[in-house]
Amino acid sequence: MTPEQAYDELFRRMQEITLLGSTAGILGWDREVYMPAANAAYRAEQSSLLAGMIHQKFTDPTVGEWLAQAEASPAFAAEPLGDAAVNVREWRRSYDRARKLPQKLVEELARVTDNAQVEWVAARRENNFARFQPWLEKIVALTRQTAECYGYREHPYDALLEDYEPGLTTAQLNRLFPPLKQRLSEMVTRITTAKRQPDLAILKRPCAIPAQQAFCRKLANAIGFDFDRGRIDVSAHPFTTGLGPADTRITTRFEEANFENSFFSTLHEAGHGIYDQGLPGGDGRYGTPRAAAVSLGIHESQSRLWENLVGRSLPFWTHFFPELQKAFPGTFDDISLETFHFTINHSAPSLIRTESDEVTYNLHIAFRFDIETSLISGDLKAADVPAAWNEAVRKYLGVTPPDNAMGCLQDVHWSHGSFGYFPTYTLGNLYSAQFFAAASRDLGELDSRFEQGDFAPLKNWLNKTIHEHGQSYRAGDLCRKVTGRELSSEPFLAYLKEKFQPLYRF
Amino acid sequence: MTPEQAYDELFRRMQEITLLGSTAGILGWDREVYMPAANAAYRAEQSSLLAGMIHQKFTDPTVGEWLAQAEASPAFAAEPLGDAAVNVREWRRSYDRARKLPQKLVEELARVTDNAQVEWVAARRENNFARFQPWLEKIVALTRQTAECYGYREHPYDALLEDYEPGLTTAQLNRLFPPLKQRLSEMVTRITTAKRQPDLAILKRPCAIPAQQAFCRKLANAIGFDFDRGRIDVSAHPFTTGLGPADTRITTRFEEANFENSFFSTLHEAGHGIYDQGLPGGDGRYGTPRAAAVSLGIHESQSRLWENLVGRSLPFWTHFFPELQKAFPGTFDDISLETFHFTINHSAPSLIRTESDEVTYNLHIAFRFDIETSLISGDLKAADVPAAWNEAVRKYLGVTPPDNAMGCLQDVHWSHGSFGYFPTYTLGNLYSAQFFAAASRDLGELDSRFEQGDFAPLKNWLNKTIHEHGQSYRAGDLCRKVTGRELSSEPFLAYLKEKFQPLYRF
Repeated sequence: MTPEQAYDELFRRMQEITLLGSTAGILGWDREVYMPAANAAYRAEQSSLLAGMIHQKFTDPTVGEWLAQAEASPAFAAEPLGDAAVNVREWRRSYDRARKLPQKLVEELARVTDNAQVEWVAARRENNFARFQPWLEKIVALTRQTAECYGYREHPYDALLEDYEPGLTTAQLNRLFPPLKQRLSEMVTRITTAKRQPDLAILKRPCAIPAQQAFCRKLANAIGFDFDRGRIDVSAHPFTTGLGPADTRITTRFEEANFENSFFSTLHEAGHGIYDQGLPGGDGRYGTPRAAAVSLGIHESQSRLWENLVGRSLPFWTHFFPELQKAFPGTFDDISLETFHFTINHSAPSLIRTESDEVTYNLHIAFRFDIETSLISGDLKAADVPAAWNEAVRKYLGVTPPDNAMGCLQDVHWSHGSFGYFPTYTLGNLYSAQFFAAASRDLGELDSRFEQGDFAPLKNWLNKTIHEHGQSYRAGDLCRKVTGRELSSEPFLAYLKEKFQPLYRF
Repeated sequence: MTPEQAYDELFRRMQEITLLGSTAGILGWDREVYMPAANAAYRAEQSSLLAGMIHQKFTDPTVGEWLAQAEASPAFAAEPLGDAAVNVREWRRSYDRARKLPQKLVEELARVTDNAQVEWVAARRENNFARFQPWLEKIVALTRQTAECYGYREHPYDALLEDYEPGLTTAQLNRLFPPLKQRLSEMVTRITTAKRQPDLAILKRPCAIPAQQAFCRKLANAIGFDFDRGRIDVSAHPFTTGLGPADTRITTRFEEANFENSFFSTLHEAGHGIYDQGLPGGDGRYGTPRAAAVSLGIHESQSRLWENLVGRSLPFWTHFFPELQKAFPGTFDDISLETFHFTINHSAPSLIRTESDEVTYNLHIAFRFDIETSLISGDLKAADVPAAWNEAVRKYLGVTPPDNAMGCLQDVHWSHGSFGYFPTYTLGNLYSAQFFAAASRDLGELDSRFEQGDFAPLKNWLNKTIHEHGQSYRAGDLCRKVTGRELSSEPFLAYLKEKFQPLYRF
């Protein structure tokens, strides 16, 4: 078999795995969006069967043989950014990782996290950390084993980060977070002590849900989400999922007295969706690394860019505020564009990460990173998490959780075994500002475009500089290529200051 | 391996196949209901991969070995209506059939029908039989081969009927259709020549779609469709699909100026759905023959019973007409219950099967049966179908199709290769009346219950006498057990006469 023939075999196998993976995606989407709740146990059996088939097809030793043969191709080696080289590189990375985990550990982790999610839901509802603690202990222990199996250079947490942000290290994050925390804390103090504060009552003004739905579609469509190759539906927790080369689905949720929630979660998910729709998958490459998203951090940069850098900007609402006033007759007639803009950029320390604003959000992540690395290194015991959490919230945000439900039980991630996921949220925020600054550098001033409702130049720039490359570049390389420099907190901090200083007049 | 162990292995394999089959079901449901059209080609690849996996897992020779071992169980043989005996009997039937078809023929048929469906859509749109003719020729040739592979006693069409109505023969249908045709034709003549005719303009009165949606949900719920274990959505062609033990989905469609369409297709599909929800699948038996529907004819009997015997009855509308008047304010205020009832029971010969009424419907089926059997026996060539069709429509219904789009191109079935399917529609109609008569015999007069909106006694009776038995009995045996006699046209003809004679006063 020639290296090229081996590559063709690999390609066919991976296409089959992609077909099964996207089928599993539909099972998951449907479960969150339309499935009768009573069918949950049966749906879990379907999903588990597909997951097992995918794992088996992917970790099949034949795949390793094909990989070794394809890697011997001088043609592929000569063109490291060619489709074949990119695909082989990333398939190798995933294959080696999957093969390093003993089947027993994979199954044990699946079994434990299945139960842990149910227990977490109950523990949060009952505000009962003791109920979740033994599950957290088991998951941390199994995750530490997982890190040992994967291997790492410096910190076991490095091995976990690799799942979400390939190449990122704990050391990098240890350099990133402390100064970011310092600068953000200073800004929080200035904002909270500012005399000028927005009128939050505006956010509670009732907006009819059908009109919210229509407005959300308009927003998503305006920024470039393609409804001919996608959909928007409703789910309890908004998400984006790619189910095929012409099938990207986003969800949002609606509350009559909380328009902010539906508008900004729609813009957020549409940002994810625009990335997925911009990947080069319509030509048979769908699902290959060459046509896949770089990392969670880069994915989050796309959602945050549209949600915040664009969607909470004054030029954006210069265009949309008159349309908003028309869409909700009488509701916003008494307030000015400037008042509206200030209100949707309200900032104050709060207890819940998912409800936090642009200034405080990364502080929530910073202390989660500290707690996670300590759990994984073994320096912190599961039993001590509530105390560590509460102390961190006081230290980072100056507020105190009234209970564990509003504290360390608030997020689902640990019950899934997703250690290493949280930092990608902060990376997304930082990348979003750095990319937006690069777009403004390349395209010139964008404000007047936004004021006219024209988002195409920015969307096309993102398509061309980021989306079309799939996984050709790792996140760090892509960042350097697009922005000319390493990832840094500076563009993000500069953006926050430029927006929040005039609003709060600090 | 003991017979019981072999049965356990079989059971596990079949559960896996059911999980994959119900996953394929979700792919199909989603395609019809929510998928962006642009994703169709990719969805077809997903479906085809699953179909191949299911076929492979089912026709695996190991399955044959397990079957042979399980069949040797004296315990199973001693209890022919026990779960194991029923399952082994039906798995054997399907396994032998699947093994009789050469892989090449299966693939060729799949390939040809895939293309034929696209060509049929185009041919119907263009009113161009010549475009479809070569595909029909290929499909008939492959279907004739299929019948030879399956084998049959008297007529090759018998081998095809087995897919839809196990045990039914062409000879039985040849005895059934001619007298049924005769009696229905007489009734058609009396109805068309009657002086009293309903006011069809009522059917075109505009009814707002959201109100139609709410009313359809109310109807489906009232007759016993369980929305906690099911859903209703919208699709171009209404259908019912079972996706899990607690997940039965029906669809309907809405036109503002055609309430009849949404009301009666909802009742029809809810009838199918109530059958699926009544199968004993919530206890790990889901998908086994013991928990599966008997046949298409029996399935159709359930939909037609609720749609027609119940849903077009005067007692049903005695309860619902006042609610209808309230749900569509001003729309039906000027007409009486009796006028409304007459209008929704209008009858007249027409060209399109799916739009035909209770009296004329089976005439559409009768001549399709003639044409199908002639095609499969080789007595009729595909090229001669339009002439044969048009002559039959004149002879059976007294009307003449203006073109082939309104004639022999109207139905999708042949492009799917589904020869032998049409007769099950008539069986469904006949069974529905025979079952309804038996229910009335067992439960006493039902009209006063219906007038009070109480459909539970009938639904519970269907659950107990038909649904709960799964495939324990073949259709013919079930009919004898439930009604005390062979399937006959008499109850159906008596029902029609009892309803239509007073309406048209013939």
